[in-house]
Amino acid sequence: MYVLLVYDIKERRVGKMLKLCRQYLHWIQNSVFEGEISEVKLKELLLKAEAFLDLDEDSVLVFKSCTQQWLQKEVLGQERKRLDAFL
Amino acid sequence: MYVLLVYDIKERRVGKMLKLCRQYLHWIQNSVFEGEISEVKLKELLLKAEAFLDLDEDSVLVFKSCTQQWLQKEVLGQERKRLDAFL
Repeated sequence: MYVLLVYDIKERRVGKMLKLCRQYLHWIQNSVFEGEISEVKLKELLLKAEAFLDLDEDSVLVFKSCTQQWLQKEVLGQERKRLDAFL
Repeated sequence: MYVLLVYDIKERRVGKMLKLCRQYLHWIQNSVFEGEISEVKLKELLLKAEAFLDLDEDSVLVFKSCTQQWLQKEVLGQERKRLDAFL
């Protein structure tokens, strides 16, 4: 399934979250990731995130769809390079 | 159509962008908006944004779908209250 993951996290935990998300998804903007991922892998990602996030202060939104085809994307400005390829 | 709009914008322009987006969409997280919007209204929003954004530094991503039904949403932590209703 295709997901979009967006987080809003206190600065001191951002580095850890960024590193975690890059293991599973592609980084496309400051706090936005996208990619193909299985339900199991997504659950794994979210469980790992929950372990260090403070859910009173932080939030993570995940938008799921069965296929990326229905999503049209429009970009103003620069989309982040796919640095993830090097991880 | 249903859209998700996510921006990554230099701090000095964030207030203006927030105010603009809240005129068209619902605020769901720090720099994330969602909602039903027509192509024409979306174009209007993006044109207004382009007028004050610096597209070398800022970026705006818009994900579009014909219907929200395709999107399942999962939330960790708090989703922002719909303050937009009061605007």
